[in-house]
Amino acid sequence: MSERTSKPPFRRGGKSFGKGRPGAPRPAWRDRNTGSDGPVILYGWHTVTMALQNRQRRIRKLFVTENAARRLAEENIETRVTPEMVRPAQIDARLGPDAVHQGLLAEADPLPSPDIETLALEGMVLVLDQITDPHNVGAILRSAAAFAVKAIVTTARHSPEATGVLAKSASGALELVPLVTVQNLARALTRLNERGFMTVGLDSEGSENLSAVELRQPLALVLGAEGKGLRQLTRETCAVAARLDLPGEIRSLNVSNAAVLALYIGATRLGLMT
Amino acid sequence: MSERTSKPPFRRGGKSFGKGRPGAPRPAWRDRNTGSDGPVILYGWHTVTMALQNRQRRIRKLFVTENAARRLAEENIETRVTPEMVRPAQIDARLGPDAVHQGLLAEADPLPSPDIETLALEGMVLVLDQITDPHNVGAILRSAAAFAVKAIVTTARHSPEATGVLAKSASGALELVPLVTVQNLARALTRLNERGFMTVGLDSEGSENLSAVELRQPLALVLGAEGKGLRQLTRETCAVAARLDLPGEIRSLNVSNAAVLALYIGATRLGLMT
Repeated sequence: MSERTSKPPFRRGGKSFGKGRPGAPRPAWRDRNTGSDGPVILYGWHTVTMALQNRQRRIRKLFVTENAARRLAEENIETRVTPEMVRPAQIDARLGPDAVHQGLLAEADPLPSPDIETLALEGMVLVLDQITDPHNVGAILRSAAAFAVKAIVTTARHSPEATGVLAKSASGALELVPLVTVQNLARALTRLNERGFMTVGLDSEGSENLSAVELRQPLALVLGAEGKGLRQLTRETCAVAARLDLPGEIRSLNVSNAAVLALYIGATRLGLMT
Repeated sequence: MSERTSKPPFRRGGKSFGKGRPGAPRPAWRDRNTGSDGPVILYGWHTVTMALQNRQRRIRKLFVTENAARRLAEENIETRVTPEMVRPAQIDARLGPDAVHQGLLAEADPLPSPDIETLALEGMVLVLDQITDPHNVGAILRSAAAFAVKAIVTTARHSPEATGVLAKSASGALELVPLVTVQNLARALTRLNERGFMTVGLDSEGSENLSAVELRQPLALVLGAEGKGLRQLTRETCAVAARLDLPGEIRSLNVSNAAVLALYIGATRLGLMT
């Protein structure tokens, strides 16, 4: 952690990288129960370079391919830790063949989770009720960053592998939008109500059309999982249950598509789009 | 194809299902180059039941688990062909472990591709410029169906496996929104211009803000692939290049999220939302 240089002396990847126990089909780190102190796995160009540029993010290890090292140097991106040089296949072996890692993989600490009591009383927050699919949560994070959302409140805790997928789908947004992890969503919503947030649950059976609701800041938009929607207690704790009216034959959207639409409507109503 | 009954006499799955050549790691159908006459693979509850209810869709074979068969019978869904009973693991073996098939897999003919000359001169169409990821195309199809889009124009031809993923992500929308497959996108856009469509390309460098453009019917919204955006010739062939202004630190959205936002803005401007 002490070396800080934009053109670091590369270390060759140690024999422990992506190999695990001899004869083991998967590297040992996949089987370890890392708990909340375990590292998060970040991979992909945007994801890792945004993390490197986030001073709040503690980087433990950084694995880079020759090509990625060259690009980091060209773009003057400080690596903060001494990168270990690896072959692309070594990262493939660790992440599986489908992960588009672009030659970069980092092990990092999770970012600190802010408290619901410290959220600023302005703009928008998103509340996710049992949305767990890491691709969807990642896409929602990315849209949240695009709409200047202040925080995402969620009960979900993701495994290191799921966090990797989530971070990749978020395309750097994990460094921009704080995740507030809570034990009990209804209690968190109650506190948001008490603190003056307008809590609006998106619900296909909602009594109001979101586009017609008089939204105000601070606004908390609450989204449920695809198919299941909001849990009953979640819906009842929201000040308003609103639906997204759609003109076509299919009446529901992919959850990240519903989220971006709600954010656009919210941001437009609150005058954040100008 | 001749049996038509909502409670068909089930046939047991033949030995050819999901097995392939002895010793082959994957079933033979995965390796076959099926070309345009080959079957498309449809799986998942919404996807398959929507296909069964689409009279334009020719079903070749239907594989169902016991549970799915019971549910089809309970919901009075006509299967049109005699289903073959299989175990869930047999469908798993064919699709891979990550496919959520819900006990239903069909082999079907592709739907006929309408011609650009026959598109009705009203509402909206979507034009996809080299967007190939089947999850993204599927999510876009689903949103297109939600916004009553008349057709999707694309150059992409998907393999049977990719079509399965696309159809699953589309959650039934593949049966609702015609896919117009063209050889040359710029030529197709030129014909849309000539036929009176307002062609609007979404482009981060666009000179106009989409929300401020005076849109009119028939409208063709043109989307490029993530990262790459519209190809130069595509952009030049559009009547308008418009950007989506975003208030946050991230300036680009996942392509299906950009699509749903463009559709919402389009539908609102054209008065289709009421």
